[in-house]
Amino acid sequence: MDAPAHDVLRSARRRPPPAPMLDALRARFGDRCSTAAAVREQHGRDESPFPVTPPDVVVFCESTDEAAFVVAQAAAHGVPVIPFGVGSSLEGHLLAVQGGVSIDLSRMNRIVRLNPEDLTVTVEAGVSREQLNREIRDTGLFFPIDPGANATIGGMAATRASGTNAVRYGTMRENVLALTVVTASGEVIRTGTRAKKSSAGYDLTRLFVGSEGTLGVMTEVTLRLYPLPEAVSAAVCHFPGIAEAVDATIQVIQMGVPIARCELLDANSVRAVNRHDRLNLREQPMLLMEFHGSEAGVKEQAEIVQAIAREHGGEEFQWATTPEERTRLWTARHHAYFAALQTRPGCRCVTTDTCVPISRLAESINDSRREADEAGLPYFIVGHVGDGNFHLGYLIDPDRPEQRATAERLSLQMVQRALRLEGTCSGEHGVGLHKMGFLVDEAGAGAVEMMRQVKRALDPKNIMNPGKIFAL
Amino acid sequence: MDAPAHDVLRSARRRPPPAPMLDALRARFGDRCSTAAAVREQHGRDESPFPVTPPDVVVFCESTDEAAFVVAQAAAHGVPVIPFGVGSSLEGHLLAVQGGVSIDLSRMNRIVRLNPEDLTVTVEAGVSREQLNREIRDTGLFFPIDPGANATIGGMAATRASGTNAVRYGTMRENVLALTVVTASGEVIRTGTRAKKSSAGYDLTRLFVGSEGTLGVMTEVTLRLYPLPEAVSAAVCHFPGIAEAVDATIQVIQMGVPIARCELLDANSVRAVNRHDRLNLREQPMLLMEFHGSEAGVKEQAEIVQAIAREHGGEEFQWATTPEERTRLWTARHHAYFAALQTRPGCRCVTTDTCVPISRLAESINDSRREADEAGLPYFIVGHVGDGNFHLGYLIDPDRPEQRATAERLSLQMVQRALRLEGTCSGEHGVGLHKMGFLVDEAGAGAVEMMRQVKRALDPKNIMNPGKIFAL
Repeated sequence: MDAPAHDVLRSARRRPPPAPMLDALRARFGDRCSTAAAVREQHGRDESPFPVTPPDVVVFCESTDEAAFVVAQAAAHGVPVIPFGVGSSLEGHLLAVQGGVSIDLSRMNRIVRLNPEDLTVTVEAGVSREQLNREIRDTGLFFPIDPGANATIGGMAATRASGTNAVRYGTMRENVLALTVVTASGEVIRTGTRAKKSSAGYDLTRLFVGSEGTLGVMTEVTLRLYPLPEAVSAAVCHFPGIAEAVDATIQVIQMGVPIARCELLDANSVRAVNRHDRLNLREQPMLLMEFHGSEAGVKEQAEIVQAIAREHGGEEFQWATTPEERTRLWTARHHAYFAALQTRPGCRCVTTDTCVPISRLAESINDSRREADEAGLPYFIVGHVGDGNFHLGYLIDPDRPEQRATAERLSLQMVQRALRLEGTCSGEHGVGLHKMGFLVDEAGAGAVEMMRQVKRALDPKNIMNPGKIFAL
Repeated sequence: MDAPAHDVLRSARRRPPPAPMLDALRARFGDRCSTAAAVREQHGRDESPFPVTPPDVVVFCESTDEAAFVVAQAAAHGVPVIPFGVGSSLEGHLLAVQGGVSIDLSRMNRIVRLNPEDLTVTVEAGVSREQLNREIRDTGLFFPIDPGANATIGGMAATRASGTNAVRYGTMRENVLALTVVTASGEVIRTGTRAKKSSAGYDLTRLFVGSEGTLGVMTEVTLRLYPLPEAVSAAVCHFPGIAEAVDATIQVIQMGVPIARCELLDANSVRAVNRHDRLNLREQPMLLMEFHGSEAGVKEQAEIVQAIAREHGGEEFQWATTPEERTRLWTARHHAYFAALQTRPGCRCVTTDTCVPISRLAESINDSRREADEAGLPYFIVGHVGDGNFHLGYLIDPDRPEQRATAERLSLQMVQRALRLEGTCSGEHGVGLHKMGFLVDEAGAGAVEMMRQVKRALDPKNIMNPGKIFAL
């Protein structure tokens, strides 16, 4: 198995925009075209521990036509294009390894069309998930996909994001109905309609969902919405150890309980969020769960899960009954990553993200934890365990390369284990720069070659976010 | 809008296998390689009203390696390959418009691996949906996708099938986890793992699901399974008219009731199934519904839906309480197509299959029905109305070309309406030969050109089911 391709940052050929292209961008965008160092640096990083790798120029687009103009320019000059939302990626997706132009879509943040009667909404790619849910609150509907960060819908589509609600509502894969896409030649196409299902031709929508900006720029996204459940209740359940919490989760899933959220936090994560969010959760492994349904249905689900938890040494549920209590708990859960970072000021985090068939989850987590303990690096575990998906974050001192090496070794072992257990090297973060080697191990050379064939066909000049997912 | 491309059957260039290829196939497959007219004819038709268009040779494969051998031969000689399951397609998918070799996968009907603890199963492509559910019955799990016909899982994946349960459980799009695929060059790849979700690279699985055999041969399919619900109940509800039944459905969906099946039958369909299955359902529009959940949950859902139905003039639910009664009703529903055919001996059926956003369903059905009434052709309507999807079948005398022309005109109008209402020209039957013109109208020239680019990249010799979905 290859080690992650860290050298890509140094070895890549740069393709900066020539003067005529910069002139054309400046003429059209004025102040919204920037080569200022601070702006470029902000667009040359994400939440990954890679060094900043800035693009040559940043353009703040406000419409699909504007994005198409930029891509057409880039295509004419063979210059890389990197779509940018808010920079919350975790695998190096946004680094301009060959230079080029970063298209910042954060100003494309309009709700284009809300159809509550059809449970659909079309948004511009720069709308964030929190903004979306705020703006549609009056309709009695919500968009469930929740990767933790307040990512943009475009970024979430690009990485096939999921998060806490996916166990019940699916991921971006299941919840994007259609896209407006600027192709690599600067044309605008629409994939899909507002129909809930279709068997009309190739599934271009899902080809783009998860393509990490390498096939085109998604500028508008049509999403499925869901009625806010009549009743919602959230509960915390402490377990004597991680193994017991995971075993309880496995049984809940195998029984088909339609649990809406089922999140594992290890003691380290609980400690971090207690400090960060001034909570006083008992500092031992816990499941943070949410139930959606009718009043009676929620009660029934909770009783079943409580009984299963008890069998595995879980304590009595502590209920978060008011919306405010629930929000406080989930906000804390979403802060786990940053809360953990703050436990060691100045540290950076190497995160992994594997997903395995549910019956393999206990083995997957237990062995990864043992290895982390043996290595002596500080770490934390959080998991969307209802999906078999969990993250291990290793906290490293960026000035101590041996810590980085240890974290990468642990991450490698964890991915190798996930693949042995018939899982995936990336449950929801994507491949980016970090997991290119892992993708080959997972999919095999033939399947990756097929991805390359698709890429070459749709982006023959390799301008769309080049150097990500696979080497060409 | 183009009329459907009927001329394709006559104008296509034939590419028959040369003698060395036939020799190689006979040497390897013996009796399982057939050029007998009866076998070829059986493989040159489906349930569409197109004339039989046989392949030059049929090979009955029993393993992925065998399928790879056939495709490698075909690739070497530039000969078309058509994967064949049981021939239940409705849009001309299986017709050998350029001749070539039909790979019959019906003998690849083994359950490869059942993992009840993970709610997954891997099957060979020739396993039928009824066989699958029979073979896994002991596990307490089931596979919900149910297109009516006892299609093969491979065929269902190829057309992105769905059917009666899709309103609750999704379609093949949501329920295929991974595939084993023979590529157009005869290599074998695996798309995906057994993990429930992944963001590792392009979604090759969903690129193949719905690709109608045009990109490769799917030989194994890994599927999601679901725990059999604790309680199941089915009910029939009669309405004064179709409009009322549809309006009730719309409200059920908008309220988020997790109904498992919600099927519309018009009076003509009810009359046909009464005769065919010796039932005595009242011959007026009805919804046939099924509820899955806990005992209490099913009761609660049914009460909500009964209340909604009542508001729209629906009568008291008639319950099918025993499994036998339920099976009898659903079997009748599945026979609707053949039952309708039998109401006019010797007739053929031109079916349409559109899907629209749920709020547009009433307009879509009412106007299509009015046009059918005005045209005076016998017809029937059945619909997976919970998804906004319905079928109109026009019964025509094959010896009267003017009836065929009328049916095609009505079908065209119905598709045009669906597209105006932001729906799709094919909810679940696929494009095949019949809807190639409609696909361009729906997706636009740019998106169809992108599909062509993908096709050319993955199948440069255009051997995989050529002439389907789009012209190259």
